[in-house]
Amino acid sequence: MQRDHAAEIADILLHPAFRTAIETLDREHERTVADIITLTEIPSPPFKEDKRAAAYLEMLRAHGLDDVERDEIGNVMGVRRGTGNGAMIVVAAHLDTVFPEGTDVTVRREGTKLYAPGVGDDTRSLAVLLAFLRAMDVAKIRTRHDILFVGDVGEEGLGDLRGVRHLFTQGRYRDKIEAFITVDSPEMDEIVVGGVGSKRYSVRFRGPGGHSFKAFGLVNPMYAMAQAIVELGRIPVPSQPPTTFCASIVGGGTSINAIPEETWIEIDLRSESVAELQRLDERCRAIMVAAVAQENAVRSTKNGEVTLHIKPVGDRPAGGTPLHADIVQRATAAYRACGFTPAHVASSTDANIPMSLGIPAIKIGSGGTGGRAHSLAEWIDVEKTASLAGMRASLATILAVAGLEDGGAD
Amino acid sequence: MQRDHAAEIADILLHPAFRTAIETLDREHERTVADIITLTEIPSPPFKEDKRAAAYLEMLRAHGLDDVERDEIGNVMGVRRGTGNGAMIVVAAHLDTVFPEGTDVTVRREGTKLYAPGVGDDTRSLAVLLAFLRAMDVAKIRTRHDILFVGDVGEEGLGDLRGVRHLFTQGRYRDKIEAFITVDSPEMDEIVVGGVGSKRYSVRFRGPGGHSFKAFGLVNPMYAMAQAIVELGRIPVPSQPPTTFCASIVGGGTSINAIPEETWIEIDLRSESVAELQRLDERCRAIMVAAVAQENAVRSTKNGEVTLHIKPVGDRPAGGTPLHADIVQRATAAYRACGFTPAHVASSTDANIPMSLGIPAIKIGSGGTGGRAHSLAEWIDVEKTASLAGMRASLATILAVAGLEDGGAD
Repeated sequence: MQRDHAAEIADILLHPAFRTAIETLDREHERTVADIITLTEIPSPPFKEDKRAAAYLEMLRAHGLDDVERDEIGNVMGVRRGTGNGAMIVVAAHLDTVFPEGTDVTVRREGTKLYAPGVGDDTRSLAVLLAFLRAMDVAKIRTRHDILFVGDVGEEGLGDLRGVRHLFTQGRYRDKIEAFITVDSPEMDEIVVGGVGSKRYSVRFRGPGGHSFKAFGLVNPMYAMAQAIVELGRIPVPSQPPTTFCASIVGGGTSINAIPEETWIEIDLRSESVAELQRLDERCRAIMVAAVAQENAVRSTKNGEVTLHIKPVGDRPAGGTPLHADIVQRATAAYRACGFTPAHVASSTDANIPMSLGIPAIKIGSGGTGGRAHSLAEWIDVEKTASLAGMRASLATILAVAGLEDGGAD
Repeated sequence: MQRDHAAEIADILLHPAFRTAIETLDREHERTVADIITLTEIPSPPFKEDKRAAAYLEMLRAHGLDDVERDEIGNVMGVRRGTGNGAMIVVAAHLDTVFPEGTDVTVRREGTKLYAPGVGDDTRSLAVLLAFLRAMDVAKIRTRHDILFVGDVGEEGLGDLRGVRHLFTQGRYRDKIEAFITVDSPEMDEIVVGGVGSKRYSVRFRGPGGHSFKAFGLVNPMYAMAQAIVELGRIPVPSQPPTTFCASIVGGGTSINAIPEETWIEIDLRSESVAELQRLDERCRAIMVAAVAQENAVRSTKNGEVTLHIKPVGDRPAGGTPLHADIVQRATAAYRACGFTPAHVASSTDANIPMSLGIPAIKIGSGGTGGRAHSLAEWIDVEKTASLAGMRASLATILAVAGLEDGGAD
């Protein structure tokens, strides 16, 4: 951490307007908790974020943002104007959860703990962004850059980061965004600076099928698939940059006395390196093609060949923000100044998209603690002191990146 | 074919009582068709033959058999007493179909064709046995041996021949049965004299699971399974006696971003030779064990090893009745005398059980034609001339094996 970032953060933390903002967060803490509960109880399954998006849109509008809108892909957003030349940073939280339609999302409160699917990942952050907006307004905080506040869709799983991907490739602000901060999950023990890229495939192997005994000797797509899986398991990958493969889900066949007509596998390939992911991807495809060719060579194709059908079901670009980048240094300084010791880690988040485009991007926490994300037992702790400590670090990060202007309330 | 078998069959075909029996079959043909329809429309899914068994039991009783009963395993049966010393032959048809509960088994008739799941395999035979009983009674036919008429359970798939297995291993007549004839499906172009043995397994590979990226390097049961499948596909097997393997159904895994905790495969091994099936079985088990050991050796077991769970789901003994055996020679002579040119083939039928025990056994046809067995489009043709030609050959076979006594109607 460079000395000037620590000094910059110290100036922000001591700024009278910032102190007013933190007092506001403190005073309004129960409102923030209420917003978490309200938003958590609006289901937001993958690809079905509409209801929550509509509610959040109205909340952004009520918080006085400009140009509040829902874009073509379903993101909701609004601008908090800066004093500068119109350069923009994005502060985002994702609207979607991993939980399917019909999941009971009722929040159960026990003391300072809230239990509900999605409550921490990432609903709390949506409420925290609203709290930040109110605090900045009360404190009359101005920033140099415009800040685009976004509730985005499609962060989880097969959503494949489609909300933020759209923002950076098709969205109306795509050429103006100079930095990206996603607030995702409560924990303050890490800052995500690396974007693990992934490619995911559903691969089908089809053949003519036949009776297990009477048609013995015909090609069997199962053997081609098995050969491909074995070869996949043998691909040498570097441990740095971390690069991985996984044969995850498998299925196929209809009857124990029949050569299957179709078998299929789902595969997950990942790397923190664009080049390594590309290399792994190419090798994986070559393995599939070779395995099918081999099966068609060693068994009979008189009733038909085994054919290969590779369907991409996920494509998250790899990328990373250098540790020395201002955005990382500012976040690190803010975390440390607020008593946290963050690790710098790589993960797969909305920040992957800007990282892959060379735009400075990080993931920070929404404050407090939580656990069991992606399980029905998901919980967060909204105990005020720990919650405010985290929110203070994250708000300081945002204001440092957006450029806190002098003035404001004291 | 030895001359004496042809002569024996000629004597039967020309016997006045046999001619009366055939005239009866002719006169009552529509009743036989009606019985086929009645029985077909009583569903008889695997392991759920109760309803049809109860109906068939009453039909056997109405046809005047002695000692009509349902045995412990669910077979229904009755004895037609012979004149001899109490030696017994079995004439069986199977009650079960391959079709699951809920399948529409309504028979659709178009001219002489009947369409319905199970109509030919093996419901027609159940009705044909009743027709034989009526014809024999009208013609006052006596046989030397007792004939046990059986509607048996569990011939198909995972039923694993349990009905006939019980008959020969636990049943009250097990020590008296000197020959076994199963009437199974209409076709008269083959006589089954070989019993293809099979061993079937459901094999589970279990491991600790984990995150596809964060836990990369841990053992994955999928790779062990794939290795086993690849090796299975490479086992050298003889084409004579026909010996086969099939990786049939596969499944496992829970999420594309997770190392599976369990994958499974169903495997079908078959041979006409007991020794070859045993060899294949041992090799297959050794492959599984080695594949699991290899996975545990090449990846990390710090969170647990891959374990192997082999569950037998089928075990049909191989066996065969020699071509020179009287039962085969008599059936062959009867078929030829009635205008058929049967091939002698091996298959997997109820006859496997007696064959494996060294008891003379064959599978013959119920007459007429049919097709698409084991599919929803299954059909038979009950056109009278072809139906009676087949029934004549099969009844002659049964009477030759049971020993037609002189006398009876002219």
